[in-house]
Amino acid sequence: MDTPYAPLAPDWQVQQWFNTSTPPTLASLRGKVIVLESFQMLCPGCVSHGLPQALRVHAGFSRDQVAVIGLHTVFEHRDVMTPAALQAFLHEYRIPFPVGVDQPAPRGPIPLTMRAYAMQGTPTLTLIDRHGRVRQQFFGQVGDLELGARIGALLEEPWKDSGGDPATSGCTDEGCAVDSRRDTE
Amino acid sequence: MDTPYAPLAPDWQVQQWFNTSTPPTLASLRGKVIVLESFQMLCPGCVSHGLPQALRVHAGFSRDQVAVIGLHTVFEHRDVMTPAALQAFLHEYRIPFPVGVDQPAPRGPIPLTMRAYAMQGTPTLTLIDRHGRVRQQFFGQVGDLELGARIGALLEEPWKDSGGDPATSGCTDEGCAVDSRRDTE
Amino acid sequence: MDTPYAPLAPDWQVQQWFNTSTPPTLASLRGKVIVLESFQMLCPGCVSHGLPQALRVHAGFSRDQVAVIGLHTVFEHRDVMTPAALQAFLHEYRIPFPVGVDQPAPRGPIPLTMRAYAMQGTPTLTLIDRHGRVRQQFFGQVGDLELGARIGALLEEPWKDSGGDPATSGCTDEGCAVDSRRDTE
Amino acid sequence: MDTPYAPLAPDWQVQQWFNTSTPPTLASLRGKVIVLESFQMLCPGCVSHGLPQALRVHAGFSRDQVAVIGLHTVFEHRDVMTPAALQAFLHEYRIPFPVGVDQPAPRGPIPLTMRAYAMQGTPTLTLIDRHGRVRQQFFGQVGDLELGARIGALLEEPWKDSGGDPATSGCTDEGCAVDSRRDTE
Repeated sequence: MDTPYAPLAPDWQVQQWFNTSTPPTLASLRGKVIVLESFQMLCPGCVSHGLPQALRVHAGFSRDQVAVIGLHTVFEHRDVMTPAALQAFLHEYRIPFPVGVDQPAPRGPIPLTMRAYAMQGTPTLTLIDRHGRVRQQFFGQVGDLELGARIGALLEEPWKDSGGDPATSGCTDEGCAVDSRRDTE
Repeated sequence: MDTPYAPLAPDWQVQQWFNTSTPPTLASLRGKVIVLESFQMLCPGCVSHGLPQALRVHAGFSRDQVAVIGLHTVFEHRDVMTPAALQAFLHEYRIPFPVGVDQPAPRGPIPLTMRAYAMQGTPTLTLIDRHGRVRQQFFGQVGDLELGARIGALLEEPWKDSGGDPATSGCTDEGCAVDSRRDTE
Repeated sequence: MDTPYAPLAPDWQVQQWFNTSTPPTLASLRGKVIVLESFQMLCPGCVSHGLPQALRVHAGFSRDQVAVIGLHTVFEHRDVMTPAALQAFLHEYRIPFPVGVDQPAPRGPIPLTMRAYAMQGTPTLTLIDRHGRVRQQFFGQVGDLELGARIGALLEEPWKDSGGDPATSGCTDEGCAVDSRRDTE
Repeated sequence: MDTPYAPLAPDWQVQQWFNTSTPPTLASLRGKVIVLESFQMLCPGCVSHGLPQALRVHAGFSRDQVAVIGLHTVFEHRDVMTPAALQAFLHEYRIPFPVGVDQPAPRGPIPLTMRAYAMQGTPTLTLIDRHGRVRQQFFGQVGDLELGARIGALLEEPWKDSGGDPATSGCTDEGCAVDSRRDTE
């Protein structure tokens, strides 16, 4: 099956990371399928569905194959969903994977990464392939069966680290993707 | 079935109420069975079990018969589980019943009402009968069937508003209860 | 709370009992609250909801207080929901309480006990009080909280074994109930 | 990712099919991923987990890509789990996909297809790839995430209908598989 053209994932703009000493980047995760779980700690659907599913992905796949990354995309109640509150939340809910705090925008409630990915709300699960391209984005709930199928398919795609940098050129063997990061500049 | 002796429920010491314009008191609720749901907004067991159960009780019984009261008994992460954060939480989780913020103690992490009721942690569900006496207290999870049976039994107990004030005397037709509030003074 | 008038429960007309050496009767269970769970082994709602709930009741209350009785009220697919098939079903699903096979009617698909209780289908849960009177009947699903409350209330009702036979007279301290069994003769 | 060697799936030996006018065969399904759900109608784990999961697969993937096939592999209580009883079961549980009744063995309780696939019990889910090879077999429960990932990966594998018959030769572009059907002759 040919891989469709897909835009390169915008870089994450994070003001603070938890659960990691080394801030993860798209470049450092090249070669892995990335499950980006965007949430707000006071969003009921995130707590009851999105984060438990992200934990199942984290537990169910090899860390060498799939990287689960959390992103705290606060766009409401910002005064109480602070990084300090998030830290307590991550501790109480025993979230083990890296979680970044999305950088607030100079103006408006939508933080920068959330805006760059055109997320509609929380929870949002973004699937990024081994080449760093956004392949699918789910807003709200997606079933485990469908999500598993998509991850399984992405893992099956051919991947050769060519030495070149697809993030720069936006090109792979299958074609050239629009670099959406340029678009936002 | 004779009603066992039971201690009068200590009065609630609350610094702020949400979802009510009139602070509820034990005296004002005399004649109703009270389900007191003590929780912390960042406690996973409270969010996944205690509060949904309290919502089912709130929806399943007549307001004339059963009063559901929430109590935010913060004993950890106090800097982030503020009244303002609780307000956002109650909004996002659509909690409709009155919720009080337990009064922090001058010393130590356990707030005053939590201490007076000798709660072991959160969630804690306290059943208070029509005469204002603590009849049962569950720490952790209690099943709906068992909780329903206890509420149903309490609703079935004879209740005559004698005009006197059992809260003062600690006495009812069935006997006299120790006034635990004196104990804590 | 005064006990409302309620009809005496019709006797069970059972062709075969499982899980008991002594066929239970309403008379032999006088003094206990009875939860009568009527089901069909190929009824999805019975398997997913009714029987699991009956198991929870069986496990959650004292056998001295509450008796759980199953009734296999087959009104469709009678050729395959035979007593032999039921026996295999009860074994595989580890149903521990007594289960009777409702006596087929000479004419029509509705078996005799199901007809006497005017059940609308399966699952049906019938609550019978300590005096042998039908107090409530639920067709379809009833929540644990509501069911628990009803059982708890019935357990709280005064019960004195007067030596007389309320099943004969239809009368108790609270009044006289219509003997619905006469109605069906 | 190279496709591992995998044995060709043994042909199904079925005495009767339900929910289909044309008995499905491995040959007729070549080109699709097959989810073979083996169950017994009185097996609790099949009813609560295996069949609902098979229904989710049936609903969640294109019929052109994934074929869900049920197999009633009765190895106990055979006198009551008859084809007629199965028919009533399939009707009540609204199972829409084809279900075959595994052919009883001349001797012993294990039916022929169950034996040929070396199944350990029920439920068993067997994944068969587009080339008709058994790629994975789960006894008991498998999570939706893991199952989805396996199906997604199988769907992603290259598939060219070469016109030849890989079922005869046991060979594909990736290699040659042992024909397990010969083994059982």
